[in-house]
Amino acid sequence: MPRFNSLPVVPLFGWVVACLAFVGSVLLGVNLVSVVDAQSQQATVPSVPPGAREVPSRAIPVPDTVSPQMQAIIARPMNPAFNVAPETTAEWKARVDTAARALVAGLPDIREALDVTVQSTTMAGVKAFVVTPMAISPQNRDRVLLHLHGGVRVLNPGEAGTREAILMAGFGGYKVISVDYRMPPDFPFPAALDDAVTVYREVLKTTNAQNVGIFGTSAGGSLTFTTLLRAKLEHLPMPGAIATGTPTVDLTKTGDSLFTNAMVDNVLGTQDGFIRATALLYANGRDLKDPLLSPIYGDVHGFPPTILTSGTRDLYLSNTVRMHRKLRAAGVEAVLQVWEGQSHAQYISDVSAPETKEYHDEVVRFFDLHLGR
Amino acid sequence: MPRFNSLPVVPLFGWVVACLAFVGSVLLGVNLVSVVDAQSQQATVPSVPPGAREVPSRAIPVPDTVSPQMQAIIARPMNPAFNVAPETTAEWKARVDTAARALVAGLPDIREALDVTVQSTTMAGVKAFVVTPMAISPQNRDRVLLHLHGGVRVLNPGEAGTREAILMAGFGGYKVISVDYRMPPDFPFPAALDDAVTVYREVLKTTNAQNVGIFGTSAGGSLTFTTLLRAKLEHLPMPGAIATGTPTVDLTKTGDSLFTNAMVDNVLGTQDGFIRATALLYANGRDLKDPLLSPIYGDVHGFPPTILTSGTRDLYLSNTVRMHRKLRAAGVEAVLQVWEGQSHAQYISDVSAPETKEYHDEVVRFFDLHLGR
Repeated sequence: MPRFNSLPVVPLFGWVVACLAFVGSVLLGVNLVSVVDAQSQQATVPSVPPGAREVPSRAIPVPDTVSPQMQAIIARPMNPAFNVAPETTAEWKARVDTAARALVAGLPDIREALDVTVQSTTMAGVKAFVVTPMAISPQNRDRVLLHLHGGVRVLNPGEAGTREAILMAGFGGYKVISVDYRMPPDFPFPAALDDAVTVYREVLKTTNAQNVGIFGTSAGGSLTFTTLLRAKLEHLPMPGAIATGTPTVDLTKTGDSLFTNAMVDNVLGTQDGFIRATALLYANGRDLKDPLLSPIYGDVHGFPPTILTSGTRDLYLSNTVRMHRKLRAAGVEAVLQVWEGQSHAQYISDVSAPETKEYHDEVVRFFDLHLGR
Repeated sequence: MPRFNSLPVVPLFGWVVACLAFVGSVLLGVNLVSVVDAQSQQATVPSVPPGAREVPSRAIPVPDTVSPQMQAIIARPMNPAFNVAPETTAEWKARVDTAARALVAGLPDIREALDVTVQSTTMAGVKAFVVTPMAISPQNRDRVLLHLHGGVRVLNPGEAGTREAILMAGFGGYKVISVDYRMPPDFPFPAALDDAVTVYREVLKTTNAQNVGIFGTSAGGSLTFTTLLRAKLEHLPMPGAIATGTPTVDLTKTGDSLFTNAMVDNVLGTQDGFIRATALLYANGRDLKDPLLSPIYGDVHGFPPTILTSGTRDLYLSNTVRMHRKLRAAGVEAVLQVWEGQSHAQYISDVSAPETKEYHDEVVRFFDLHLGR
């Protein structure tokens, strides 16, 4: 239960008036302070914010407002390693390798289910994968999507980074180029950004910028934004549209849902521990508020149409909606979708979940609306 | 801290693999079950959802990612009366009256600040207010907005219901008709809905439906949807567009944020207590899942373009995004905006907050895009 003993002591009558006025008025958003002041000088509401909201412990049930597949995903226990960070280069590499091997083991089934082939390539010296669906939709013949994978800027090297690209190629009927960008511990910032921009520049040699879409989830969503910031600096044209899912646009611990959804998001837990360590490893001493690390602090004027995705339990819900507001304030056509009950990036957790198909339907429709042909 | 003692006992090696795979993979949303099964038969992840997420108690700081005005609103203590419900008709009326008097006392200042006049009227026997800005924008001369006020279907009778209409008239340069619909305890369902539809029908006698927008917050947002459901049943044309803020589209206790944001939302606290009592009072014995009470269960095909608004701390975040998804799935052009750190309806709490202006700018732009002229 909440504690009220931190409230200021005021006369009983004042509180009665304040309480009644509050219930009656805040539902319509009335400024309580002015209302109460106007109504009764006896009721004084603190003008200085008293600070933090104390929330009691609780058990949050699995919602029945999502598919059975999504219910199973939401019901998973908290990731037990969310707070454990490697301390040596060897430990980082072991963690990356183990995770990548586990992930890659699941890819053949997904490629087969979605009828998608994956071929490794090199573009201007940068490793990449060309991800091709069995049938490219007619309107997509002259279009290319550039994929920047997630994994907190450290995980998912090589083939492990192609999973989301396979889903987009399969669900969307698009040819996708997935960039196997360099990562720490060997290659911290700006290696990943250099690689992403290099591949984008290569793609522009054969494809009109208006026909190119860029997309990514989590760190890949943030890298999509920083790629655009760098493209602007280098006077490259903007792509036709971008799709960023729960983008980690702020490497500092800023954004309300980092607190409200801490230990509610069963994928990430909190931004401390492992995630904090990956940010520092990537930044390599650079100011975390540098816009090329945290694009929420960048100038997004002139960005192309953007669709952003998050979930109500997502640790990065706030950073997604902050970026959405920032884009809107800059006059960018930006569309937001938030998924019921989902933690970080769970809209692509299970290929068989109806939410996964619906997510891709929305993004594909958005690309189709905004990309050139 | 989370409790892990409910996890199944598995061999240590299995857990190590599972943990490493988890960190490496779920950031990209991999289906952990299949990955781990493929990697190690020793690691068994429960196939039956273990149920609720246990979240420890915590103190959530006031975010610095919003305006100073909004920080003050977010820092307000929890409404102390959220869990107190009247038990007699006399108690209900006293609560309604006290709240309305307090709210009305603040209206002259707002009308003056926004240069808006309010006149009471009657339309086909239904009480209403005509809310007129000093300057109606040229493109809005042949447009009318219909306003359905909030207040959990019980509060804000008479002039108290006009506050949101004053804001929209002032910020948007629109003529607004605010319906003073009948409410319990004297007039439960369907009186409010009858009144809303009656006024809509009256407006259609002088204004093309395409030139009419309907908007409301909370109960007013839900009543906007049920008005459309009834209009469809009565073969009335749809309005040109609607705007619904944190609409209470489900009177049952359904929607994940009713649990995740319980005691986080400082306006509503929880859906139990007072709010539950108002729903039962309004429903008057009718099934709470009736679409005319809970429009999330209705058929929204053919609905006009809709802009929906919520906040990351909003108790009704889930019901807002559920309705957004339902509209999108029905092919409706539906736009979502979610405000950083805000509880229920705080985007209209303080007329001077930049978020209040930005909210209205978005809604007004949306109406301007979709309404006829």
